[in-house]
Amino acid sequence: MNKNSSNIMALAPNTSNKRETVCIFGTGDFGRALGHKMIQSGYPVVFGSRSTQTSSLIPKDAEVLSHAEAAQKAAIIIIAIQREHYDFLIPLAEILHGKVLVDVSNNLKINQYPESNAEYLAQLVPGAKVVKAFNTVSAWALQSGTVDASRQVFVCGDNMEAKQMVMDIVRALGLTPLDQGSLLAAQEIENYPLQLFPMWKFPILLSLGLAAFFFVYSLIRDVIYPYVYENKDFSFFIAISIPNRICPVVALILLALVYLPGVLAAIIQLYRGTKYCRFPDWLDKWMLCRKQLGLVALAFASLHVLYTLVIPIRSFVRWRISSRILSQALKNVTEPLNTTHAWLSDSYLALGILGFFLFVLLGITSLPSVSNNVNWREFRFVQSKLGYLTLILCTAHTLVYGGNRFLSPSSYRWYLPNAYMLSLIVPCIVLVVKFVLIFPCLDKPLSQIRQGWERNPQYSE
Amino acid sequence: MNKNSSNIMALAPNTSNKRETVCIFGTGDFGRALGHKMIQSGYPVVFGSRSTQTSSLIPKDAEVLSHAEAAQKAAIIIIAIQREHYDFLIPLAEILHGKVLVDVSNNLKINQYPESNAEYLAQLVPGAKVVKAFNTVSAWALQSGTVDASRQVFVCGDNMEAKQMVMDIVRALGLTPLDQGSLLAAQEIENYPLQLFPMWKFPILLSLGLAAFFFVYSLIRDVIYPYVYENKDFSFFIAISIPNRICPVVALILLALVYLPGVLAAIIQLYRGTKYCRFPDWLDKWMLCRKQLGLVALAFASLHVLYTLVIPIRSFVRWRISSRILSQALKNVTEPLNTTHAWLSDSYLALGILGFFLFVLLGITSLPSVSNNVNWREFRFVQSKLGYLTLILCTAHTLVYGGNRFLSPSSYRWYLPNAYMLSLIVPCIVLVVKFVLIFPCLDKPLSQIRQGWERNPQYSE
Amino acid sequence: MNKNSSNIMALAPNTSNKRETVCIFGTGDFGRALGHKMIQSGYPVVFGSRSTQTSSLIPKDAEVLSHAEAAQKAAIIIIAIQREHYDFLIPLAEILHGKVLVDVSNNLKINQYPESNAEYLAQLVPGAKVVKAFNTVSAWALQSGTVDASRQVFVCGDNMEAKQMVMDIVRALGLTPLDQGSLLAAQEIENYPLQLFPMWKFPILLSLGLAAFFFVYSLIRDVIYPYVYENKDFSFFIAISIPNRICPVVALILLALVYLPGVLAAIIQLYRGTKYCRFPDWLDKWMLCRKQLGLVALAFASLHVLYTLVIPIRSFVRWRISSRILSQALKNVTEPLNTTHAWLSDSYLALGILGFFLFVLLGITSLPSVSNNVNWREFRFVQSKLGYLTLILCTAHTLVYGGNRFLSPSSYRWYLPNAYMLSLIVPCIVLVVKFVLIFPCLDKPLSQIRQGWERNPQYSE
Repeated sequence: MNKNSSNIMALAPNTSNKRETVCIFGTGDFGRALGHKMIQSGYPVVFGSRSTQTSSLIPKDAEVLSHAEAAQKAAIIIIAIQREHYDFLIPLAEILHGKVLVDVSNNLKINQYPESNAEYLAQLVPGAKVVKAFNTVSAWALQSGTVDASRQVFVCGDNMEAKQMVMDIVRALGLTPLDQGSLLAAQEIENYPLQLFPMWKFPILLSLGLAAFFFVYSLIRDVIYPYVYENKDFSFFIAISIPNRICPVVALILLALVYLPGVLAAIIQLYRGTKYCRFPDWLDKWMLCRKQLGLVALAFASLHVLYTLVIPIRSFVRWRISSRILSQALKNVTEPLNTTHAWLSDSYLALGILGFFLFVLLGITSLPSVSNNVNWREFRFVQSKLGYLTLILCTAHTLVYGGNRFLSPSSYRWYLPNAYMLSLIVPCIVLVVKFVLIFPCLDKPLSQIRQGWERNPQYSE
Repeated sequence: MNKNSSNIMALAPNTSNKRETVCIFGTGDFGRALGHKMIQSGYPVVFGSRSTQTSSLIPKDAEVLSHAEAAQKAAIIIIAIQREHYDFLIPLAEILHGKVLVDVSNNLKINQYPESNAEYLAQLVPGAKVVKAFNTVSAWALQSGTVDASRQVFVCGDNMEAKQMVMDIVRALGLTPLDQGSLLAAQEIENYPLQLFPMWKFPILLSLGLAAFFFVYSLIRDVIYPYVYENKDFSFFIAISIPNRICPVVALILLALVYLPGVLAAIIQLYRGTKYCRFPDWLDKWMLCRKQLGLVALAFASLHVLYTLVIPIRSFVRWRISSRILSQALKNVTEPLNTTHAWLSDSYLALGILGFFLFVLLGITSLPSVSNNVNWREFRFVQSKLGYLTLILCTAHTLVYGGNRFLSPSSYRWYLPNAYMLSLIVPCIVLVVKFVLIFPCLDKPLSQIRQGWERNPQYSE
Repeated sequence: MNKNSSNIMALAPNTSNKRETVCIFGTGDFGRALGHKMIQSGYPVVFGSRSTQTSSLIPKDAEVLSHAEAAQKAAIIIIAIQREHYDFLIPLAEILHGKVLVDVSNNLKINQYPESNAEYLAQLVPGAKVVKAFNTVSAWALQSGTVDASRQVFVCGDNMEAKQMVMDIVRALGLTPLDQGSLLAAQEIENYPLQLFPMWKFPILLSLGLAAFFFVYSLIRDVIYPYVYENKDFSFFIAISIPNRICPVVALILLALVYLPGVLAAIIQLYRGTKYCRFPDWLDKWMLCRKQLGLVALAFASLHVLYTLVIPIRSFVRWRISSRILSQALKNVTEPLNTTHAWLSDSYLALGILGFFLFVLLGITSLPSVSNNVNWREFRFVQSKLGYLTLILCTAHTLVYGGNRFLSPSSYRWYLPNAYMLSLIVPCIVLVVKFVLIFPCLDKPLSQIRQGWERNPQYSE
């Protein structure tokens, strides 16, 4: 159901009031925001507070009582208090016996405490049914109604019925509960909102590093060299020409790095003769961020496509073409069509188009909603078969683009080869090794190993 | 599980028949369609009808009995009858006691009745367990098997077990049940199928209004003016040139309008000194449709990109370029490269490419399946940081494009400035105000207010 | 919750060990992989095996016992054994009474056995609570942690509580359980991992067939004909020019084929006067793969766009333009602007851009996560109204492109018309018939029929 309707719903006061009373311990920002939202959704709310003096900040329709009194009025008590103050619940243990306690707390650092806040709460009040929930939504989101991102509320707890009661409240608030199992999942749920794209850090840093290196490299070759030797000012290359050199180079290297760990893993398994031995840690981490590497590569490839397609609109390119035509007109020469040249130009463009097309297809299948709709066999087909085809097409695109310039001395300025030549190293290694691994003499033992067979059982001991 | 497999399953008759009998009250179109589908899925179906005469329309394998007889044969009774006729169930109350009644009805208007049909049914037959379900699928979809869109069936009800039974039937029919909580959610579920993109109405109308205004504006400047003063027929500009002026202008204004309400909200909060005071209604509504505004802006930006990239293929542009070259050839002049011009041209293209790239990234992260996979912190990072960067890049793109033409009198025809100059007003205001709000003297109190602090508590009283 | 966090979680050993013991029957590859993963997630694991000799392959922290002993230690027993060997469970029936048996088996062929493996297991051990789960994940995925695709685990079973226990384990392993209802769904779940894009086969084969036909057709017209009659070598057309003829032609035909079955169905229903009569089998199948047909058409359309946009970068095109300008320069002629030509060129480009734009919009709305967020009415609006508009725009694009060349004899080489002329046949038929069906005299009875009305009740008898 879309946001809108649930928001309208939430604000509609014409619901007959048969919701159960909910108690909230703590009148801080999050407690108040949650209270507001619950009252809007038709729940009678009672606040438990040290000072029972009604503050103007507390929602008007809510009662404010002492902790003990408030707890007695409701079956569900939301603990909107920081972990450091949980101690005050110990004297209330008797009143809280059998009640559902909802831990909504977050920490400041990942794995700040040895056990999760919810498990700590369960230890302090052993008679209560502790449920972890609501920690992934912010007070600001609840207040402002801008819940585009965080409609998901992770819920976990050991008591099934308590969990169901909390999940019903979550639904009534227009949010989506996600059952995460027993209270053991609380640590993970508490760490979740503290993350900032953890899997993307390495791919993005790597690509930025590569981009910076190739920027300096291309600047030397394409701007400084002509300025020094020919005294020409090509500084405007910084805007489009140089980025359009960096992007394809970085994209191709990153794409090859997506497939390199798989090839390395195969070599390690062949060498060890077993799959039951852990890979080195760096390889494990590398394998886990392959999807992100691939998507960053796709981003660079898309930029390359855009930069390439605007070429004919560029003022510099128009000037170059017209000055070429004019020089021919002045000399009264008409060049005939160079068929080889036409072949080369058309085929590297065609290879690039097909490679990019498959790359976008891979990107689309990595969207969560699409990849959830394919089974393991289909996923392997797309990511492995189509992935290698993409790599082959993109490598061929670069090779044909370079064409016969590899051996021409004019493409080496200050002994620096063209950037695209450097970019071919990793993909070519990956493709050659993969090609070798396809030979039956290597493919057969590898398949056996991956099905659980062991050559040297002593390895895994 | 994908459509296909479940369809194959549904048609496979080799399932051992241990499904429980389901009773359907009403032999109208929807009742029959649901009955067909249930028989295909292995459920014995019994129809309850006023006339027990078997019509040719009713599925062959189904029995047709009187309402009372039919109800006794099954634990689950689907009420495929319009709300106006629910009265006939009152005499059956005794037989229906303890049964699961499934309300599948829909209304003709949003909020047609004070209480939802399902709640009305629960009041009429207090002894039965009422579950709301199936109202979001259409008879035609059930019949034809084209269930691409509406595989989701919203289910709500106060009795947990009854809800589970209905959800199991939904799954067996190859559809996806979505638990929406207690019967209070029925009103919302009944309103859901009546909506037609409610959140999109304002953004689309606004963008069409802007597009119409700028169409007339550009028509006057670019077609009528040259026709009147230079007697040139540029009517074919209507196909590409004018749309390519409208699209970027509308896209930039809409993008700025996405960020304007956030800036306004900050000003209001700073002025009031509290966040516990509701925003004016128009601001609330505006904030809720920001995502849609942004996506419409992205659509216009994409059209602008396509219109721009076809420029060199246009017959008019080719003619213009060749006539320019020919006039130079006739005069025997070769223009040198204008580096400033090359810089300007390349940098506005580069800014546009980067801005569009980030814009597409924002669009992708607003896909439900992607935004569900990021936490609140990540979502804020993308939508706020990257969003403002996009706005800055797109505004800079327009500024550099305009370049030194702002003060040139030739760009004012009939005192009308170029359309892109008008489009810069809103984005520049938003960026300047946002820039001011970043200063610590304003940013600090704003952060405090958003964490629940109040400067003037009297405001929220 | 994203992959990453759950992986970190899974490896973190600081979880207090209160998980229940799980027993695994079978020490094969999948059993061991599952055992590994469960131990990592904090479950004590006990293996049941014929030989209780601990192999080096078995996870170190797991116990290996005889089947009977192992079964007594746990409430949940995972049967990681092939269906052929299920017989050995019969003597253990007494020990297994009341236990939860998890069937994880897969078959080699779709519908290999008359009943699913899980149902067979339930028949063999009638006292146990059989749950089907885990068959959609592979041992390799569990081992390597690459669970990008297959995080979904389909779970079904007749006992609610047993299903909940298994779903909790699934969640603890960092996977997503999907309740599929009763054990009857097991057959479908077992077939699921054996599929390889079943719905895509027909659309892809059809499009490849069409592409091959038009490739040969264009080769004859555009390469062989000029070679024979004018002795010109245009073989490089194979790279871009010919694909750019094939792609739009195939895309337009496929798009028309998406709407043809709907039109045929309407005609059949009008003729029969009822909707309660099944369509011919081929029409049913055709209707079920319309979405796939449309997406393949979109892929070809996207390639067409890319091939078109690189036109001005092609070396051949640059040569042709410059040689045209040079020939004008030599003759000292300046052609005036041909306004009709400019109109035609701009309007077919504009029609193509708008058609492609709507086509992409249709593609985006067919993403599972997007289509799940629209209701039936909205889905019909997008797929029907916008779909036909797309077809109209794309047909108009082709018609205007062809323009006045239809009757020119030069476009018929060896009596073969241009490929785009052939591509117009199906879309024009669809649009004409659809236009006829909109007339009230046909639309009214059709709407009535679709609401369940019958003209000739004898048909459905």
